[in-house]
Amino acid sequence: MTHPLRFSANINTFNACADRYVLSGYGRRLSTEELIQEATKVEGLTGVELVGMWHVNDDNLAQVQRRIRDAGFVVSCVTPDIWASGKWGWGSFSASDARIRREAIQEVKRSMEWAYQLGCDVVDLWFGQDGYDYPFQADYLAAWDRIIEGTIECAEHLPEVNLVIEYKPKEPRTHCFIGTVGKTLLLIQKVNKPNVKAMIDVGHTLMAYEDAAESAALLHYFGDRLYYMHFNDNWRLWDDDMTVGSVHTVEMLELLYWLDRIGYSGWYALDIFPYRENGVRAATESIRWIKGLHGLLDKIGRERIAQVIASGNAMEATAMIREALLG
Amino acid sequence: MTHPLRFSANINTFNACADRYVLSGYGRRLSTEELIQEATKVEGLTGVELVGMWHVNDDNLAQVQRRIRDAGFVVSCVTPDIWASGKWGWGSFSASDARIRREAIQEVKRSMEWAYQLGCDVVDLWFGQDGYDYPFQADYLAAWDRIIEGTIECAEHLPEVNLVIEYKPKEPRTHCFIGTVGKTLLLIQKVNKPNVKAMIDVGHTLMAYEDAAESAALLHYFGDRLYYMHFNDNWRLWDDDMTVGSVHTVEMLELLYWLDRIGYSGWYALDIFPYRENGVRAATESIRWIKGLHGLLDKIGRERIAQVIASGNAMEATAMIREALLG
Amino acid sequence: MTHPLRFSANINTFNACADRYVLSGYGRRLSTEELIQEATKVEGLTGVELVGMWHVNDDNLAQVQRRIRDAGFVVSCVTPDIWASGKWGWGSFSASDARIRREAIQEVKRSMEWAYQLGCDVVDLWFGQDGYDYPFQADYLAAWDRIIEGTIECAEHLPEVNLVIEYKPKEPRTHCFIGTVGKTLLLIQKVNKPNVKAMIDVGHTLMAYEDAAESAALLHYFGDRLYYMHFNDNWRLWDDDMTVGSVHTVEMLELLYWLDRIGYSGWYALDIFPYRENGVRAATESIRWIKGLHGLLDKIGRERIAQVIASGNAMEATAMIREALLG
Amino acid sequence: MTHPLRFSANINTFNACADRYVLSGYGRRLSTEELIQEATKVEGLTGVELVGMWHVNDDNLAQVQRRIRDAGFVVSCVTPDIWASGKWGWGSFSASDARIRREAIQEVKRSMEWAYQLGCDVVDLWFGQDGYDYPFQADYLAAWDRIIEGTIECAEHLPEVNLVIEYKPKEPRTHCFIGTVGKTLLLIQKVNKPNVKAMIDVGHTLMAYEDAAESAALLHYFGDRLYYMHFNDNWRLWDDDMTVGSVHTVEMLELLYWLDRIGYSGWYALDIFPYRENGVRAATESIRWIKGLHGLLDKIGRERIAQVIASGNAMEATAMIREALLG
Repeated sequence: MTHPLRFSANINTFNACADRYVLSGYGRRLSTEELIQEATKVEGLTGVELVGMWHVNDDNLAQVQRRIRDAGFVVSCVTPDIWASGKWGWGSFSASDARIRREAIQEVKRSMEWAYQLGCDVVDLWFGQDGYDYPFQADYLAAWDRIIEGTIECAEHLPEVNLVIEYKPKEPRTHCFIGTVGKTLLLIQKVNKPNVKAMIDVGHTLMAYEDAAESAALLHYFGDRLYYMHFNDNWRLWDDDMTVGSVHTVEMLELLYWLDRIGYSGWYALDIFPYRENGVRAATESIRWIKGLHGLLDKIGRERIAQVIASGNAMEATAMIREALLG
Repeated sequence: MTHPLRFSANINTFNACADRYVLSGYGRRLSTEELIQEATKVEGLTGVELVGMWHVNDDNLAQVQRRIRDAGFVVSCVTPDIWASGKWGWGSFSASDARIRREAIQEVKRSMEWAYQLGCDVVDLWFGQDGYDYPFQADYLAAWDRIIEGTIECAEHLPEVNLVIEYKPKEPRTHCFIGTVGKTLLLIQKVNKPNVKAMIDVGHTLMAYEDAAESAALLHYFGDRLYYMHFNDNWRLWDDDMTVGSVHTVEMLELLYWLDRIGYSGWYALDIFPYRENGVRAATESIRWIKGLHGLLDKIGRERIAQVIASGNAMEATAMIREALLG
Repeated sequence: MTHPLRFSANINTFNACADRYVLSGYGRRLSTEELIQEATKVEGLTGVELVGMWHVNDDNLAQVQRRIRDAGFVVSCVTPDIWASGKWGWGSFSASDARIRREAIQEVKRSMEWAYQLGCDVVDLWFGQDGYDYPFQADYLAAWDRIIEGTIECAEHLPEVNLVIEYKPKEPRTHCFIGTVGKTLLLIQKVNKPNVKAMIDVGHTLMAYEDAAESAALLHYFGDRLYYMHFNDNWRLWDDDMTVGSVHTVEMLELLYWLDRIGYSGWYALDIFPYRENGVRAATESIRWIKGLHGLLDKIGRERIAQVIASGNAMEATAMIREALLG
Repeated sequence: MTHPLRFSANINTFNACADRYVLSGYGRRLSTEELIQEATKVEGLTGVELVGMWHVNDDNLAQVQRRIRDAGFVVSCVTPDIWASGKWGWGSFSASDARIRREAIQEVKRSMEWAYQLGCDVVDLWFGQDGYDYPFQADYLAAWDRIIEGTIECAEHLPEVNLVIEYKPKEPRTHCFIGTVGKTLLLIQKVNKPNVKAMIDVGHTLMAYEDAAESAALLHYFGDRLYYMHFNDNWRLWDDDMTVGSVHTVEMLELLYWLDRIGYSGWYALDIFPYRENGVRAATESIRWIKGLHGLLDKIGRERIAQVIASGNAMEATAMIREALLG
């Protein structure tokens, strides 16, 4: 038996998306209240993600909580902002400046507390700025020391809240320290706290030439550490943050199968950047694709899939997919 | 109205495939006769490709012709071998050694003649060895002079046979001179012979970060030069020569749509390397995928697709595909 | 004999660089006046690039011209902004909305006029927004029709100013129509105007798996169309816009050699994004690297390089570079 | 103080290299005796690598040992052949066929014994065939179970011999299970045997978008597990197995620096495929590049490098390299 899927999206999905050329964004900037309002238009969405400081802070916590509840959502994840202003440019937990490290840790702790008060047990630890751009720029050993130290301190701060490491090979740095599923597990094992787990962002696995299904299986294999999922798609070389199903069909299907197989019961959250698309439509389409592909697994039958995988016969595998998709 | 699809495959599809580690191949080596016999087991296959010297030569021409006819096939393409022995290692048409260039041109002419006698009007000009591996190794200007010169000479040799340029960005060289659709068209325009055209190998476009549909459209745009197609799939970074549909669904669908839209009426030939798979099964699956996806276009309706493209609305596009694939 | 190198940089090099996460930029925002002032601190810089509307417009033309002259610079290039606001998101010359196309063409013409009045004969035509993000989103044929039409109209507007096409495979779109050197030459040939030429942005060639030296040679081969150069470096998979020489040494050396060999006499302009670096320092370093590598060519000797290339001997080539770099 | 560098090469470096198109190879096939003879022509080479069964077996052990000693070499590494014949096509340690797994383990044990008798303490465990090609083809969990189990069994067989895991993201499979530095460390930690360590093949790190210096540092950080090195170069997207220094200068320099910094004292072995180059020349050039770059580190000064890294200042870093290379 598989779990019913719960869908979430960062409310920023519904905001104007910007890139380094169009800094003001391709659409209209909305307030947090408006973003929540937009989210209610997405069929099937029951959760929302918030970014700490952007959407929730000490002053507006009660108000935001009420609005989200009134809109019928639960908060699936809070993401501390340790990557979106210039001061984080040389790293957050791994910064060589001790004050920046201290600030980053405080920022994460604050997000953990907001999450806790919002009834959410997931905080997304994305070390986007912790890395390097040029050769001879990084002290790799010191960086790992610091990331481990900061993660332990945060984990101990509020054991009821899970820190999920979101790995990504690059961007905004040309190289991020925590860039692959393997490095993520090394970090988790070294930190060795029960509330430090991992998330998979599908697009980040594609960029890393990982198969997301394999990465999910690995996170299960080494201590059942997969606790959250970010869905999107891309052209395999960059974090294009496109809508789910728009490019890669078969790999997405394989991922959904393995999520069930390893007993993943967490959120199916969207992390898309609909630069030129309507955010509500983009989220709706993404959810429909996930539901549709998930339904296909039922149609094929989990037993049959397991048998085909056990056979290792690639032609059986592709025939199975073809028949399911094309009849 | 769309053309009925005609399927072909290189008979080597049914032979043991080798790579640089397993030089003796992953399966059993067959004779040309056996390869033709295997081809008859593939449902829907009506054409075969031959490699000059490997499968057809002056001595066995009549015999091969009879066997192919008896097996119910037509020859869709003859590929001269100007890349599979050490002597071509530093180039064929672009080699700095004039004798090698001469031999390569002779080899192509011979294949053109065999093609002609076999009732086939396509010769595949793949410049796999014409390129470079290291910086400061190539005289780019001289290389283009020589490739143009050789192509003109061959084109004039037998105007009834079409030379179709098969571009590929790399392998076996780290860089091939004729590596992209753009360079292919530049070569065709410079050569300026009516019987010099292009083929698209789908996997090569993926490697080049081309969208095969766009490349097909471009070959149409600049003088309607697309005359042959090689189908396969890969993981976008290397010429994995996998079976059609095994990885990329949506892009393949878009390609099939555009082939019809630009009036492509040539062969749908397979160029796959089923290293560890049964060749007959791999070819059969590839054909079924193409047919299935092609049928999906009819189901969606060409008019509707044209409207969605004209709208430029990506969410309309992905919804259209989703509904067709997942109902 | 080789030409003395003339260095230029977009004055925005000295401004805060932003990415899609840090929209306010990693440093301090400066006025145009301050940017020019910063530029004067870069040793060896004699030219500056301006972006139309950002730095120069009808109102400030005389003033900007005076400031640039007073600072001791000439304007090497004016780049029309047809990619940095939301309205260009669905394309400039290729937009399906005729009014947007009209605006884009007007924008380019305005930049051509400003360039002319500033004594500059180069306008950079970068079609960053002209492309597509998703499959089934683009009408490739219509796009090329429109790009050709717009380019012809602009070229005819002011024949004294050269339009240099700046190709790039992707970003901000996941696929840009004018993405490779081959497509650039196809466009140039179709447009067929003497003042439509090309530029090479080194990082864009790396992204496209082109060898910049080969691309420069090709632009020379097909009608001597290379008229401008953008220098930078990256990790080969994305337009990281790093400083020259920071990653790729040998390929940069080969490019510099071929620029001389084909008689390139245009600007050596920097197009870098020193997100976390001091702009003056980054530009200074880039120029020093170019000068240093260029000097190495003299040290090796152009004759010897030509001989090694003619030999096609990769080990001779790498030994030559090694001896020059490491003694 | 840094260790004097000891250079080794697989004797197959001097044999004809083949690829999937030129199966007979680009040069002349030599006997083991001739290969050893060729190796003696490489200045600075003091070690050789052997492949089990190919070069050494129970029958010729004494003879090979004598020839290698007479030629003045020591054996730096023995590599069991668990990837070069069709029977390994569906995996070695991870094969679903228990007999194949058994054979693979026996093959590794045999190579360990030959290594031991040859006075060599390194056996290269490269799981090239352990992976998958298609989606829905692999049982990721079972694969890891089997790889761990086989590795433990081999490690216990002969504790005096070190098994060094050689990771590689792909080829010959489109995806290899042990593909990154992170996964390698996970395997090592799970196996938990003192004689199971890692090697870095530089080209494999480039393919994986790893910085080899960072990967070396990580292998040091997590238990000091780096015990062997394979040097080569490539164009970052495929295992081109080019000569050292031919493409990437700065990253190679950074790697050499970090090898010293973490106290690496193992072999500097070459793993190159000089398809079209003379093997002796290719090995000689590679060694000269390594020596030259290593000497540059002394010239710059380790203290200064450490200070620049500690500063995190990329412009200081690139200036330091530039001054060292270009004066």
